[in-house]
Amino acid sequence: MEFDLISRYFKEPFADLVQSRGESVLAGIGDDCAALKPTLNHTLYISTDTLVEGVHFFSDDSAHGVGWKSLACNLSDLAACGATPLGFTLNLSLPSVDENWLSGFSGGLLDLAAQENCPLVGGDTTSAGSNTAKTISITVFGQAPAGHNGFHRAHALAGDEVWVSGTPGLARLGLLLQYQRVGQLAACCKQSELMRVEQLLAALPDHLKQRALNALQQPVTRIRLGQQLHGLANACVDLSDGLGGDIGHIANSSGLMANLSVLEIQAMWLEYWPELARSPDALELLGTLVSTTLQGGDDFELCWVAKPAHHNAIQSIEPRPRRIGTLQQGEGVWLSREKAGPERWLEQSYNHFAEPRL
Amino acid sequence: MEFDLISRYFKEPFADLVQSRGESVLAGIGDDCAALKPTLNHTLYISTDTLVEGVHFFSDDSAHGVGWKSLACNLSDLAACGATPLGFTLNLSLPSVDENWLSGFSGGLLDLAAQENCPLVGGDTTSAGSNTAKTISITVFGQAPAGHNGFHRAHALAGDEVWVSGTPGLARLGLLLQYQRVGQLAACCKQSELMRVEQLLAALPDHLKQRALNALQQPVTRIRLGQQLHGLANACVDLSDGLGGDIGHIANSSGLMANLSVLEIQAMWLEYWPELARSPDALELLGTLVSTTLQGGDDFELCWVAKPAHHNAIQSIEPRPRRIGTLQQGEGVWLSREKAGPERWLEQSYNHFAEPRL
Repeated sequence: MEFDLISRYFKEPFADLVQSRGESVLAGIGDDCAALKPTLNHTLYISTDTLVEGVHFFSDDSAHGVGWKSLACNLSDLAACGATPLGFTLNLSLPSVDENWLSGFSGGLLDLAAQENCPLVGGDTTSAGSNTAKTISITVFGQAPAGHNGFHRAHALAGDEVWVSGTPGLARLGLLLQYQRVGQLAACCKQSELMRVEQLLAALPDHLKQRALNALQQPVTRIRLGQQLHGLANACVDLSDGLGGDIGHIANSSGLMANLSVLEIQAMWLEYWPELARSPDALELLGTLVSTTLQGGDDFELCWVAKPAHHNAIQSIEPRPRRIGTLQQGEGVWLSREKAGPERWLEQSYNHFAEPRL
Repeated sequence: MEFDLISRYFKEPFADLVQSRGESVLAGIGDDCAALKPTLNHTLYISTDTLVEGVHFFSDDSAHGVGWKSLACNLSDLAACGATPLGFTLNLSLPSVDENWLSGFSGGLLDLAAQENCPLVGGDTTSAGSNTAKTISITVFGQAPAGHNGFHRAHALAGDEVWVSGTPGLARLGLLLQYQRVGQLAACCKQSELMRVEQLLAALPDHLKQRALNALQQPVTRIRLGQQLHGLANACVDLSDGLGGDIGHIANSSGLMANLSVLEIQAMWLEYWPELARSPDALELLGTLVSTTLQGGDDFELCWVAKPAHHNAIQSIEPRPRRIGTLQQGEGVWLSREKAGPERWLEQSYNHFAEPRL
């Protein structure tokens, strides 16, 4: 790509943001290296994610949304570690130079970067040839005080309560809507679920459809929440792979079992969608929503575990998190219903990305 | 990609290296973030490069070589800043899972990572679909004492001497040989140069051909040299885009002109290829070698500028660097010959990658 395009879309728009970081960002785009200066006695946190056109986003998704989301899914990993962003680098491999797309993409990146005070400090762009897919890799850098435990997956304890932010599963609803729009819903869920998913999508009011699409295309980032959980959470993950899979990562890494309350997950949806309670199909729809929540990734909400002693402190966080289960001696992810013993959840997270991370 | 493949090729092989870094690498692959702890009062340096199959490497290049080079071109940027490696992240987008390729690639990465004590600390892998090109992005992290000037391009001073390590241009010879092998030499150099390039390649002894291919496929890294230049160099770049272009970056950023000595560049080649002096075509071949040196990228040797007062200190570095010019008031890159006034060098660097970096 030509220098002036790089300057127009990736250097100039971010110049103020770089400047505003003062001496924590000493040199950015243009030198061989970016130079960052983490705060004294802080640990550096790094995460990286790749998004490929046709795998992680649709070719006709808005470029602004792709820019926002590329950064959001990386910031989400910092949030899950309780880290504060310092900056990010961008690797962009494009089939050709499309200034409209670059402009939208740069704008989406910048909007979220400005919101989270996370400047673009370097990168590499390549025109890779006409029959290649757009490939976007972002690497984010953050920091947290050296004494912070980093919320490592293996740090959970038996008896910990399991918490989530937001309404996990919402982004998967958005994804199902997108696949339905292009007539490929069957590519995105199991045959045995297809009818129930269609029933659910048909029942969704328009304002929730829009919120579901927003959750998919312009996800929130939970940096502030990650900071608020310092000293409270033992372990934390972002819900990039779906609640069932992600709480499974914590449980497995810590040698424990997760016992999730179906009632609590249903209550979460009833709070989000109060009209649902009056539907004659409420129970069936709630059942589908619970599956969607367990399977669905891409929410970038946080899921963490904490000692019961911290229950009140966590409940006072705004927006209010929801306790959806506990960790116990044992293994695997289990679902408890009101009147039945727990059943093991054996489904794999259904993620259209379908790619575990390194 | 499946977890067990990631573990086999990217987690287990690097485990000892991560371990050996002690508390400077607190958490690696498997958590949401890697956690690094730079040394107290050190600045963090970051660089990132993308390599795309068919653009930056040939499809039939050895996977080991591609692994080595992917890391080498990033470490080279750390070297140019005088930084010491801490670790790197890897984003790998592949058309499909090819275990033979993964094994070679991982081996190449590991060989160089172990040499430079630079562990793989995280990443993301994607199976992007059968009609995509292999895309490799690496981001490296390094550190240098906070008082170090970072060798920024804009820090050069009028009167500085221009130095290079190794034999810049050698990797371009390797590239020309590769294009000749597949019968596409014309795709890699200008029509007006074609005959002289063919003459040069025909004259190259076999042992130099092999060294040229090695320089392209398994380049050296100059981390140790970058460290030795602390307190000596004012500005430094790696020769990824070719000597003419890269010294131009320093000259332009510092508001100066670079005056390079053709005689010194010829002397460099005569030292490297002593038999050349006895060739009846010596003058013509040397002329082609000088062009190759100015145009050719991918050497990952260093080019730096330093006050004449440091001349002796720099000459005592092993392997011995070569002074090839000076910086003066003015602008642009100029070539001085023995009996003529300086001529402006107006060619663009000829880089098969042809992609300026962000």
